[in-house]
Amino acid sequence: MMRTRPLKVALLGCGVVGSEVARIMTTHADDLAARIGAPVELAGVAVRRPGKVREGVPAELVTTDATALVKRGDIDVVVEVIGGIEPARTLITTAFEHGASVVSANKALLAQDGAALHAAAEAHGKDLYYEAAVAGAIPLIRPLRESLAGDKVNRVLGIVNGTTNFILDKMDTTGAGYQEALDEATALGYAEADPTADVEGFDAAAKAAILAGIAFHTRVRLDDVHREGMTEVTAADFASAKQMGRTIKLLAICERAEDGGSVTARVHPAMIPLTHPLASVRGAYNAVFVESDAAGQLMFYGPGAGGSPTASAVLGDLVAVCRNRLSGTTGPGESAYAALPVSPMGDVVTRYHISLDVADKPGVLAQVATVFAEHGVSIDTVRQQGKDGEASLVIVTHRASDAALGGTVEALRKLDTVRGVASIMRVEGE
Amino acid sequence: MMRTRPLKVALLGCGVVGSEVARIMTTHADDLAARIGAPVELAGVAVRRPGKVREGVPAELVTTDATALVKRGDIDVVVEVIGGIEPARTLITTAFEHGASVVSANKALLAQDGAALHAAAEAHGKDLYYEAAVAGAIPLIRPLRESLAGDKVNRVLGIVNGTTNFILDKMDTTGAGYQEALDEATALGYAEADPTADVEGFDAAAKAAILAGIAFHTRVRLDDVHREGMTEVTAADFASAKQMGRTIKLLAICERAEDGGSVTARVHPAMIPLTHPLASVRGAYNAVFVESDAAGQLMFYGPGAGGSPTASAVLGDLVAVCRNRLSGTTGPGESAYAALPVSPMGDVVTRYHISLDVADKPGVLAQVATVFAEHGVSIDTVRQQGKDGEASLVIVTHRASDAALGGTVEALRKLDTVRGVASIMRVEGE
Ligand SMILES: NC(=O)c1ccc[n+]([C@@H]2O[C@H](COP(=O)([O-])OP(=O)(O)OC[C@H]3O[C@@H](n4cnc5c(N)ncnc54)[C@H](OP(=O)(O)O)[C@@H]3O)[C@@H](O)[C@H]2O)c1
Ligand SMILES: NC(=O)c1ccc[n+]([C@@H]2O[C@H](COP(=O)([O-])OP(=O)(O)OC[C@H]3O[C@@H](n4cnc5c(N)ncnc54)[C@H](OP(=O)(O)O)[C@@H]3O)[C@@H](O)[C@H]2O)c1
Repeated sequence: MMRTRPLKVALLGCGVVGSEVARIMTTHADDLAARIGAPVELAGVAVRRPGKVREGVPAELVTTDATALVKRGDIDVVVEVIGGIEPARTLITTAFEHGASVVSANKALLAQDGAALHAAAEAHGKDLYYEAAVAGAIPLIRPLRESLAGDKVNRVLGIVNGTTNFILDKMDTTGAGYQEALDEATALGYAEADPTADVEGFDAAAKAAILAGIAFHTRVRLDDVHREGMTEVTAADFASAKQMGRTIKLLAICERAEDGGSVTARVHPAMIPLTHPLASVRGAYNAVFVESDAAGQLMFYGPGAGGSPTASAVLGDLVAVCRNRLSGTTGPGESAYAALPVSPMGDVVTRYHISLDVADKPGVLAQVATVFAEHGVSIDTVRQQGKDGEASLVIVTHRASDAALGGTVEALRKLDTVRGVASIMRVEGE
Repeated sequence: MMRTRPLKVALLGCGVVGSEVARIMTTHADDLAARIGAPVELAGVAVRRPGKVREGVPAELVTTDATALVKRGDIDVVVEVIGGIEPARTLITTAFEHGASVVSANKALLAQDGAALHAAAEAHGKDLYYEAAVAGAIPLIRPLRESLAGDKVNRVLGIVNGTTNFILDKMDTTGAGYQEALDEATALGYAEADPTADVEGFDAAAKAAILAGIAFHTRVRLDDVHREGMTEVTAADFASAKQMGRTIKLLAICERAEDGGSVTARVHPAMIPLTHPLASVRGAYNAVFVESDAAGQLMFYGPGAGGSPTASAVLGDLVAVCRNRLSGTTGPGESAYAALPVSPMGDVVTRYHISLDVADKPGVLAQVATVFAEHGVSIDTVRQQGKDGEASLVIVTHRASDAALGGTVEALRKLDTVRGVASIMRVEGE
């Protein structure tokens, strides 16, 4: 059954992920051939610095001319692991034009231009696969797109950024502050020199856009994703969470509204109960909860990044794309038929944990409670703590819209007796 | 793009799973059509009792002649949710002969005759999908077969039977004995009137055979799976496990030997550390850990049974098979190219937790330790407890082969000072 003419693969980028892809393609060549039904051959490797020694990569395959490589015409699959928008985007579309299918790990690009890239793939009858773009090694895009294709997904709730989970886990387990935990993450190589993309939630927001699009069969643009980073989370927030049996995670949350007529996507720190399976996701691991009509609650857990885990996902896609090519077909492309409106953050309904610094005198709670009531936000629990004429109120609400909560907080700030709003955090997963 | 001629589906069986498949096919017809690219139509429903009222299933579709239904010739996909070996097996092969692809949830049949059924599917150029056969709603077969197709799986470790997990969880959390916990499971509908298939590990063994086959690209027959039930697990075992920071689960374990040259598959109760993610799998939930070279540790969690979760998996397969049909191709079939030998239980290497009732006199531990040493089984920890001239020794070993452990226990039984071997349990996941 085995075809002997090999399928040719062009590797664009040979860094953390690409070098592992090259390594596995070489060391596992026989297995890959058996699983695909034809051998796969590394036909070229595009990099920026051609002089760099790359173990296991034959020097004659290395080129700095990625464009010429994707234009060769004999390439079956282009694996794009350069990252960033350009030149990755142009290289991918050029690849389709010259007859190749594409496997990519590029969440930034897919989140920004997924629709256009899918359209280009379809126009040329080629595949575009990107399992590695979301949560590294964890099979997530294929399960959502294929395994749950007969189900109705209502919510995706996940820890999709390992750096921030490492930092929050440190803060939780050691009582460290944000900066201290970040420093440790940097020292251990879990955070980059410039951690902005991770700690400000940009990376998670890109993944949220991709996941929401697939889960709801709707185009969700990066701009549609409400994004808050986790740099303001304090040790006090963790202490407060702990007192109520909760912990804090940076979550990507994609939800279908209760009436089913719209969806939302957001990234922000949130308190979740310690009993929630996501609460025990440690270190740089990722985990994603999926809730659907028929299947109920599913969870997918594993390493969300790293060269070899990400390469595992890339190679799974590579095998699938090669098989499709051999059978002259393509896999499922973009599915955006539902075209549901994406609602703004104000429409999101959830619970909130609010810490207020208030004057320690009678009647304050009554005043505060009145403000909540006037804005239609119902209070679940209140904890009062007083010391030296100052007091704090910790309030957890029932479900309310983000808009209603925003109005409440604005009004609270105007009360004389409210000295400050120490923190506001959403409560999820209950 | 939408084809208007519908794809025709024959449903064999309309019980717990089948009725949910029929319901979702009706209520979600538009979504299914959009995702497949053509409408799907329920063309016939085979049952045993035609008179039974089946909500949402048009009476004119119901037949008791399943054979005639699969022979009609206009059926695109046969969904087999009857269960058992016959008539399911003959109906499936007849379906292939008459041009249909097949989706099945039948673990017993797939574990016993998977190879022959795959061969029949391939001979007729048809698909055979069965995601629902292992761990209900949890995407597991597709991730193993496709997402990890470029990786090397070394171990699959899972809770794949909800009934036994419910019972063991009860014993763990309430201190109940096996019978009491089983009675509660029966009363709540988690255990069948005859719980043999579950509590004796037959159901889990079928799943282990299927998982091992896919994970290792090797045919693993049901007979190759070492099987021990969980009816002998006692409250004392749980107490002993707890003292050492462990709990007890019925696990399906598929492993590649360290030298990579062979594989094993087994089902038995085992102690796992409380910190292991599988330890916190509660109630009737299932969860499967997968360890591979590149991806590392992945976990898949969700409802392992029930009509609607199982139907979710069936429908995911149905969508995939319909898409394949429309594009004139088939998905990945059986992959058994590695054809690794399946080693017997004696070759399995793991750790053991052994409780001995011994005479409470000096020198017993030395005697016992000598027996372990003579059989090449190295001891990790020993706990001695004495009362009234009787004492117990709880020993946890380092890794040793099952054969070596068996020899050790046989020799221990012959010691005068050993009154009895109270329990032997494997220790996994450390
Ligand atoms: N690292 C992870 O854990 C991870 C996880 C999931 C997804 N991803 C995604 O995977 C992709 C690659 O990430 P990475 O960590 O492997 O990045 P990386 O280590 O920075 O590697 C990037 C590679 O691209 C090459 N390159 C850069 N610009 C190029 C250009 N203009 N033409 C040709 N080659 C160029 C670089 O060449 P030189 O070697 O010469 O510098 C390098 O080999 C990104 O989209 C990232 O988001 C990464
Ligand atoms: N239930 C679960 O949670 C679950 C989970 C995973 C996998 N599965 C698998 O799914 C399959 C179905 O399970 P189930 O729980 O739905 O079983 P079930 O409730 O017992 O339903 C079996 C159905 O098959 C019909 N049937 C039996 N013998 C037949 C025959 N000779 N010809 C035509 N129809 C016949 C029955 O007809 P009547 O209605 O007339 O009796 C009934 O509709 C099994 O393979 C099982 O292992 C089940």
